[in-house]
Amino acid sequence: VAADDAAPATRPAGYAFARGALDRAAELRADAARLAELAVAPGSRLLPVRADGRILVDTGRGQLAAQPATNVDADVTFLGLQGADAWFARSVPADTPTPDPTLRWLDLRGAAATLPADEAATAAYARALLHWQSRKRWCGVCGAPTRLGEAGHRAQCTDAACGAQYFPRTDPAIIVVVDDGAGRILLGRQPSWPEKRYSTLAGFVEPGETLEDAVRREVAEESGVRVGPVEYLASQPWPFPASLMLGFHGRAVGGELVVGSELADARWFDGAALPELIASGELTLPPALSISFHLVDHWFQRRYGRHLQPGPVFATR
Amino acid sequence: VAADDAAPATRPAGYAFARGALDRAAELRADAARLAELAVAPGSRLLPVRADGRILVDTGRGQLAAQPATNVDADVTFLGLQGADAWFARSVPADTPTPDPTLRWLDLRGAAATLPADEAATAAYARALLHWQSRKRWCGVCGAPTRLGEAGHRAQCTDAACGAQYFPRTDPAIIVVVDDGAGRILLGRQPSWPEKRYSTLAGFVEPGETLEDAVRREVAEESGVRVGPVEYLASQPWPFPASLMLGFHGRAVGGELVVGSELADARWFDGAALPELIASGELTLPPALSISFHLVDHWFQRRYGRHLQPGPVFATR
Repeated sequence: VAADDAAPATRPAGYAFARGALDRAAELRADAARLAELAVAPGSRLLPVRADGRILVDTGRGQLAAQPATNVDADVTFLGLQGADAWFARSVPADTPTPDPTLRWLDLRGAAATLPADEAATAAYARALLHWQSRKRWCGVCGAPTRLGEAGHRAQCTDAACGAQYFPRTDPAIIVVVDDGAGRILLGRQPSWPEKRYSTLAGFVEPGETLEDAVRREVAEESGVRVGPVEYLASQPWPFPASLMLGFHGRAVGGELVVGSELADARWFDGAALPELIASGELTLPPALSISFHLVDHWFQRRYGRHLQPGPVFATR
Repeated sequence: VAADDAAPATRPAGYAFARGALDRAAELRADAARLAELAVAPGSRLLPVRADGRILVDTGRGQLAAQPATNVDADVTFLGLQGADAWFARSVPADTPTPDPTLRWLDLRGAAATLPADEAATAAYARALLHWQSRKRWCGVCGAPTRLGEAGHRAQCTDAACGAQYFPRTDPAIIVVVDDGAGRILLGRQPSWPEKRYSTLAGFVEPGETLEDAVRREVAEESGVRVGPVEYLASQPWPFPASLMLGFHGRAVGGELVVGSELADARWFDGAALPELIASGELTLPPALSISFHLVDHWFQRRYGRHLQPGPVFATR
């Protein structure tokens, strides 16, 4: 049973961006009067997000450097409520300097390493929503400009004859720890990664495809391995820029290992050897902020009763 | 364990659009020479999809009325391989008449009721992909026209300075059968539905949200009910126009039932009374093509050892 309140060992946990604490209060998105009141309330906060995806962080205090929200206009996005306090977000240019030497613009991986889990999730939410807005300035149907509505949660074509509406996009992607049922685990590495770094296989779900079919197709494409039974384990928002990682376990039932065109390598690792490979530097796993590490660690922990060492964070898009 | 090859009773099954049999052969999407060869091969097929989403069906034979594919040009989309035979799709105007009195343009619900499961899944895949193309003719970043590439699976901005790329969109949505652990099940109805029709609650996953949080948020928004443990069960492509339904069971742990603004009604039903309510016409469930029916039926079947009667198909968008 993939119940997410089950005992910790039964599900991957501890990855970033997944512990959001805001009440999204969607019913307020169309309530301009209430939002205007909230904007000037003492506890309300405005989170600036740079166009390059960086978030303003008070690294000394280890918290988001959200400013008091002083006004609500067409450019502001309502994120939700924290108790009675409203959180807003606004996009600012990529070259915006830090307003104060105690504050820093951090990318989301850096923010996740610095912030409490709930604030990292708020940052990821804000970043994903504002990135979508930046890609939806013009109507894809007719080419007219769009206008944001619902406090940043809808884009509408300004051409009355077209009137197309758009809602924030989230790209579902499967990510899967594959084993062979005899103690071996299938990991791969992308060409852009540091040497010796390996991770679980992953890929976007395509139109007209179930999650389960996407798991089997991606593993076959990237490794030639045929997956039979699959089990959903957990999910993680992954705002690079707009993915939702859907974590699975898959059992290999056949297929010759052939490295697909998207990977630099894929191979079977003996589970019992993982701690030594990691300790000796022969293998680096993904960082603890990613669900990929926790899928591997969860598999290892269920089998060997202890945890693995996550790898360091390195910058990618 | 939510393994999709487990015994039938352990997972919902039998809904439409989920049994795709095409090999998507993504490696061929950039291989223009091979696609041109495939297009004139005797077994290749071209599936026309009307701009209103209707698919050409040979209702007498109960199969897709795909035509021989005679050429591959910039407007054709490669769907995949069935054995050695290629399937292509092409969008045609909404007023395209049927080319033959034995063929009919059916919407996807009608097609699902007529076609074998694998052909209904192909139709849903083609429809979802072509709908995405129709919404991605202009670049959302800069307003320039886009051009399709990768045999219909990518759109690229034609402005060289922008060059934004877009990939097919799939909107993840949760759909959840909520029970109270004491034999009652929570169902709701939308204002546009026929009277007495009730179904499971559902809603889109938002940016920066886990599936599990989306389940709890949607149920709270629509019914006031607080959900604790959740369990993933199964997924269904739902091309109306581009959703992916992620089916869950959720256990209510509190909250007063208050009908949310999106629903006409929501109420607790006594599980034991469902067959009689359905037989007497007091309750109509969703049709058998939807995962919503199968989530309810699966819950009932686990508890009472028998199946429920699905409702009729009615047209919605």
